[in-house]
Amino acid sequence: MTVHDASQFEVKSEPFYKTVANEEALYEAAYRRRMPVMLKGPTGCGKSRFVEYMAWKLGRPLITVACNEDMTASDLVGRFLLDKDGTKWQDGPLTMAARIGAICYLDEVVEARQDTTVVIHPLTDHRRTLPLDKKGELIEAHPDFQLVISYNPGYQSLMKDLKQSTKQRFAALDFDYPEAEIEAEIVAKEAGVDADIAQKLVQVAHRTRNLKGHGLDEGISTRLMVYAGQMIAEGVDPVAACQMTLVTPLTDDPDMRQTLQAAVETFFVS
Amino acid sequence: MTVHDASQFEVKSEPFYKTVANEEALYEAAYRRRMPVMLKGPTGCGKSRFVEYMAWKLGRPLITVACNEDMTASDLVGRFLLDKDGTKWQDGPLTMAARIGAICYLDEVVEARQDTTVVIHPLTDHRRTLPLDKKGELIEAHPDFQLVISYNPGYQSLMKDLKQSTKQRFAALDFDYPEAEIEAEIVAKEAGVDADIAQKLVQVAHRTRNLKGHGLDEGISTRLMVYAGQMIAEGVDPVAACQMTLVTPLTDDPDMRQTLQAAVETFFVS
Amino acid sequence: MTVHDASQFEVKSEPFYKTVANEEALYEAAYRRRMPVMLKGPTGCGKSRFVEYMAWKLGRPLITVACNEDMTASDLVGRFLLDKDGTKWQDGPLTMAARIGAICYLDEVVEARQDTTVVIHPLTDHRRTLPLDKKGELIEAHPDFQLVISYNPGYQSLMKDLKQSTKQRFAALDFDYPEAEIEAEIVAKEAGVDADIAQKLVQVAHRTRNLKGHGLDEGISTRLMVYAGQMIAEGVDPVAACQMTLVTPLTDDPDMRQTLQAAVETFFVS
Amino acid sequence: MTVHDASQFEVKSEPFYKTVANEEALYEAAYRRRMPVMLKGPTGCGKSRFVEYMAWKLGRPLITVACNEDMTASDLVGRFLLDKDGTKWQDGPLTMAARIGAICYLDEVVEARQDTTVVIHPLTDHRRTLPLDKKGELIEAHPDFQLVISYNPGYQSLMKDLKQSTKQRFAALDFDYPEAEIEAEIVAKEAGVDADIAQKLVQVAHRTRNLKGHGLDEGISTRLMVYAGQMIAEGVDPVAACQMTLVTPLTDDPDMRQTLQAAVETFFVS
Amino acid sequence: MTVHDASQFEVKSEPFYKTVANEEALYEAAYRRRMPVMLKGPTGCGKSRFVEYMAWKLGRPLITVACNEDMTASDLVGRFLLDKDGTKWQDGPLTMAARIGAICYLDEVVEARQDTTVVIHPLTDHRRTLPLDKKGELIEAHPDFQLVISYNPGYQSLMKDLKQSTKQRFAALDFDYPEAEIEAEIVAKEAGVDADIAQKLVQVAHRTRNLKGHGLDEGISTRLMVYAGQMIAEGVDPVAACQMTLVTPLTDDPDMRQTLQAAVETFFVS
Amino acid sequence: MTVHDASQFEVKSEPFYKTVANEEALYEAAYRRRMPVMLKGPTGCGKSRFVEYMAWKLGRPLITVACNEDMTASDLVGRFLLDKDGTKWQDGPLTMAARIGAICYLDEVVEARQDTTVVIHPLTDHRRTLPLDKKGELIEAHPDFQLVISYNPGYQSLMKDLKQSTKQRFAALDFDYPEAEIEAEIVAKEAGVDADIAQKLVQVAHRTRNLKGHGLDEGISTRLMVYAGQMIAEGVDPVAACQMTLVTPLTDDPDMRQTLQAAVETFFVS
Repeated sequence: MTVHDASQFEVKSEPFYKTVANEEALYEAAYRRRMPVMLKGPTGCGKSRFVEYMAWKLGRPLITVACNEDMTASDLVGRFLLDKDGTKWQDGPLTMAARIGAICYLDEVVEARQDTTVVIHPLTDHRRTLPLDKKGELIEAHPDFQLVISYNPGYQSLMKDLKQSTKQRFAALDFDYPEAEIEAEIVAKEAGVDADIAQKLVQVAHRTRNLKGHGLDEGISTRLMVYAGQMIAEGVDPVAACQMTLVTPLTDDPDMRQTLQAAVETFFVS
Repeated sequence: MTVHDASQFEVKSEPFYKTVANEEALYEAAYRRRMPVMLKGPTGCGKSRFVEYMAWKLGRPLITVACNEDMTASDLVGRFLLDKDGTKWQDGPLTMAARIGAICYLDEVVEARQDTTVVIHPLTDHRRTLPLDKKGELIEAHPDFQLVISYNPGYQSLMKDLKQSTKQRFAALDFDYPEAEIEAEIVAKEAGVDADIAQKLVQVAHRTRNLKGHGLDEGISTRLMVYAGQMIAEGVDPVAACQMTLVTPLTDDPDMRQTLQAAVETFFVS
Repeated sequence: MTVHDASQFEVKSEPFYKTVANEEALYEAAYRRRMPVMLKGPTGCGKSRFVEYMAWKLGRPLITVACNEDMTASDLVGRFLLDKDGTKWQDGPLTMAARIGAICYLDEVVEARQDTTVVIHPLTDHRRTLPLDKKGELIEAHPDFQLVISYNPGYQSLMKDLKQSTKQRFAALDFDYPEAEIEAEIVAKEAGVDADIAQKLVQVAHRTRNLKGHGLDEGISTRLMVYAGQMIAEGVDPVAACQMTLVTPLTDDPDMRQTLQAAVETFFVS
Repeated sequence: MTVHDASQFEVKSEPFYKTVANEEALYEAAYRRRMPVMLKGPTGCGKSRFVEYMAWKLGRPLITVACNEDMTASDLVGRFLLDKDGTKWQDGPLTMAARIGAICYLDEVVEARQDTTVVIHPLTDHRRTLPLDKKGELIEAHPDFQLVISYNPGYQSLMKDLKQSTKQRFAALDFDYPEAEIEAEIVAKEAGVDADIAQKLVQVAHRTRNLKGHGLDEGISTRLMVYAGQMIAEGVDPVAACQMTLVTPLTDDPDMRQTLQAAVETFFVS
Repeated sequence: MTVHDASQFEVKSEPFYKTVANEEALYEAAYRRRMPVMLKGPTGCGKSRFVEYMAWKLGRPLITVACNEDMTASDLVGRFLLDKDGTKWQDGPLTMAARIGAICYLDEVVEARQDTTVVIHPLTDHRRTLPLDKKGELIEAHPDFQLVISYNPGYQSLMKDLKQSTKQRFAALDFDYPEAEIEAEIVAKEAGVDADIAQKLVQVAHRTRNLKGHGLDEGISTRLMVYAGQMIAEGVDPVAACQMTLVTPLTDDPDMRQTLQAAVETFFVS
Repeated sequence: MTVHDASQFEVKSEPFYKTVANEEALYEAAYRRRMPVMLKGPTGCGKSRFVEYMAWKLGRPLITVACNEDMTASDLVGRFLLDKDGTKWQDGPLTMAARIGAICYLDEVVEARQDTTVVIHPLTDHRRTLPLDKKGELIEAHPDFQLVISYNPGYQSLMKDLKQSTKQRFAALDFDYPEAEIEAEIVAKEAGVDADIAQKLVQVAHRTRNLKGHGLDEGISTRLMVYAGQMIAEGVDPVAACQMTLVTPLTDDPDMRQTLQAAVETFFVS
């Protein structure tokens, strides 16, 4: 058996996370039962940050896998590699997590091909096992292992959704952008700007979020607001900073750009 | 010939399974003739648990394969691997089961590509052989070997169904969710909650099962009820516990969520 | 040249086969000329059994290949494998059959990709050769070699059919389910039940065969009747036995199930 | 450079071929200029036999490749194989033909993927070279090398046709079924039946050829007539022999079968 | 860990770049925060030149990757190669850039498959890490590493666009063709022609840019104008030079060619 | 670094090429600037011959690649091959050309997949580099290297066209069939027939070229006329020769064949 260095997956310092409601307590209860958990919510609202924070709080290593449509079951489970003595088995991230008792976080799992999602089934019921079919080995998960997945309800289409037999293996927590006050606090801290600027950025973002589905696919995320704040903190003119971080990345439609630009100017042109 | 360690596939302790009707007797009769068996029924109703239980009762090793659309015949039958002396044949799970006389359980077989299903044909008629074409070898199945597959009738579409020439190789048993009383007993035992809570959870689940096809793809499975019970046993408020385990995982439709939430509150808000 | 052990492909004991008409004499005449033969007929009517019987009668080894849509020409012809001294050629089943003078039976050949069917062309005309393009070798078939394929006319669609240039390389024999009397004899012998039960099973099956195309894709095959008989021989109640083997495997449509159930009860509920 | 054993590709004895018109003289003139030649005509009308005959007459080795849609350029040109000292180049059939000065016959070339057809371009103009891109080598064709392809005009669809830039590299000869008298002579000689039976078989075939496009994809080929004659020569009743070789292989449509059966009986039931 | 020779990716001499607006200052501010940057604009307007210029100005090595639809995540991240002692990991360009602290420029990123774009996510948020899943290693990006991507808004279709969860990880800068005067200066300098000819070429180009969407997919780029100037500097007649570089490459439509030709003659036929 | 034998790619003797207009002078001017050149024109009009002639005239080696839809970027750039000491890099034709300073001619480049066309971008702008991503190496093209591509405007469809960002990297030259007189001279010289016959062949060809788009995909190319002349020079009757080389290869439509046949007879039946 391969011995993995769990320490490289430890979350070394406390990630900055602002609790919104009872999500910490619910997650901790689920973890005590090692219940698989699904985090639902829009782009950039803090799902990844939350699982990182909980891993730090629970003192468990965290292994994150960004899922994508070209990812195969082997990318998760492992494969044989050629060695000077022939082939050698190389654990994939899921297998590694099951062995060392990490929290394994499959980000945007619905992007993955179905074989990837089927492979997690025996890890998410009473068996808590992972069959390495290609190796003829059956792994029993470490007692501390837990599986967490994320899911953006806005993305799913008829063609691409989790199967019910997968969904019904997870307890689920809803996430959304934080309250205005909390979000401003986050922006101020992460970008290094004062509260006034942070609040203005949040107000711009809130206007765009109302445009979701009316010309915009998504509103401005917390991340982009932090970018805007960082540019301002670097001495860039706030309107230019907002244009570069809140307007230009979001859309190429001239009308929509004008609308966003107007929102920026409302708050930043005195 | 590779020597396999059959003991790792033994079911060590009696799985918790509540008999519903005459399914045990029918399965035992079929096994005496080594007749291939197909288990039909919805997500999470206990098909996998049943085959595990029967393997334990019959004292046979059990090899389970979660089928998926990227699984090839080689994943089942085996392949050549590179060794320091060249290539070495590695038995797949089906070949291993045929050699050691295990029960081989192909879960959700219809997900697999057709080459996977064709490969089981000679194992499911009077021949009871498995040709390893790539190796030029013809395996005769161990006298105790039996093939079991599962099949969810709700999933099949015109594009993806078993061929008649495959279907007609199996005797079939229907499965469904257990009776309310039995289901409550299961939930109470597995989650560690009292009978009253378990019964309430079952009543919530029954309401959702009537919504199947009317806005829900599937009703709440026994597994999710157990999750709800576990959260309550961990001290979480029952309504929050049900929301996390019975409502949020199932749907993102606001109306449907309200309906489910109302069902939860009917039983858990006094 | 690889030396193959032909003995493992010998049909050791006489397979149970009931002659229907002049198919034995016709096949023998075709074999004397080593003419390629195509067996046409529905699922489970005895095509595979017939070719096994003829191989036994003619004293020729039989190599059967279950064709499928993922099968490549290499799966039939052979490929290079890695050895400790580099690559080594591994004959596929068709090449092996051509070398040792076996009857090569390609079951459901239309399932295979076109490269598989094109590969048999030079073996089925005056050349009787098989070019191993990847090896730069041209094999002359053993004088006793013969190619047999099976074909289910009910399956073919516009998308998936044999090319005329393939079809016109075979003499063809039609197969169908055996006459009622013969079929009952087969069921009685194979399942170990008395003539009365066997005849009742045949009568149930005949009713379902009339439903083909009217709600059923195929009628009950001889194989499923044998399963029913076996369950009854194991002491299972005939109605339960028929439900498990003749009704549940065939369809999930509630109305059709009721129709089949009624047919069973007509004969087995006194 | 690999040394190939050209002798295995020699046509050892004169193939039986009945000249129809001036096709021999035209082919010989084309060969003197090493002009690429395309043979056009329906299934089983003798195209392959003709090129075999010409190779024998001209004393050139013949390398035949049955093209198919899964064939890659590497299958024609060659590839690297693993050896005990690393990789070793293995010439494909086209490369081999170009080296030893064979006639290379690509049968049903339109079936192949476009990379296969593009690969022959530099061999079919004034360059007469074959670049082995993967090897970084440029082969000059042997002075005796010639390329011949076959093409069935009945098959081509909008999706699958030779590109004009390929077509315009070949001189072309039309082929069709031989005249009745010649065809009867062929059948009599190849099957070992007397002239009377052979003529009757030809008359049956001619009737079916008029049905082409009116319920039949192709009429009866010379090859199937030879099969019928062979069965009769083996002592099989002519009507049964014709049914097995001229009716059953061609169609599964009951009306069309009856029409064909009637044609058989017209000539063979006295 | 592999040691890379960063020097081969240094931009040795100052690339010729004419600043248009405040793009340099904005980029420098973004780089100080190591913020990921997206460059938006039409074909050949100077996006690649700009990033090359900024890399030179900031003294950072630059690794450019031309994305395409067949590029896989492994092409970016790296893969195992066979060595005489077995397999050896080979860093891909993204991994190399993350290790040596280069600016990594993914040109036309939207062409790449989604797995390529998902792979950059952990490098573009607070983590600044790159998981090498196949190696079980987690790389922390060098403090000087920055990711830059380019994006042509004119290309995107419904089928092929960046996901919002990718877009919202980048600050964005718009690019367009330079002002007439600046563009003429560029053409004169790069082609080695006098100002008069350069201005005429720019005027021809401006006319074609108005035709974008009215028969032309794109107008004449700065690059093609430089080509025209170079041909003229080589002594070619200006009208022939423009035809070869500004007309013939752009379109095959006879009317559109006449329009372009007329524009050329307006300025170059006196 | 691999040392390539450039001499095998030298054009040893002067190819026969008849200059039509100023194409030689234009090409030479473009080559002096090492400008990428695109040759546009119909099948068989002499594009390949022209580039061969120019390579001879300029004394540069010529590496020709026939592009096709299965060609990958690796086929152009190179790949790792297994050696007795592990893997060894093998330059592809494009890399080889860039190293030795050859003219690299990509024939029918639009047939290739997009990754192939993107790979040439850095070789066709001021960078003149070729990144070997898989090797982590950046090649600077030899000062004499030039890239030439061919493009048949008649072929392009909406699905398959060069991207504007590729097109705008090339100066372009139009090609068409030569004038009647010149074409007759070519046919006479290449086929070895007298001027009278050559002129008649050209007149037949001209008639068919008017049928392009009216039942014929392309008219008769110069190459096919040379074939006709060669057959006549071999003593074949001119009408039979024309039928074999000008009529039968071009079309299978009976009406169109009659039209072409009539054109032949107008000139060759006295």
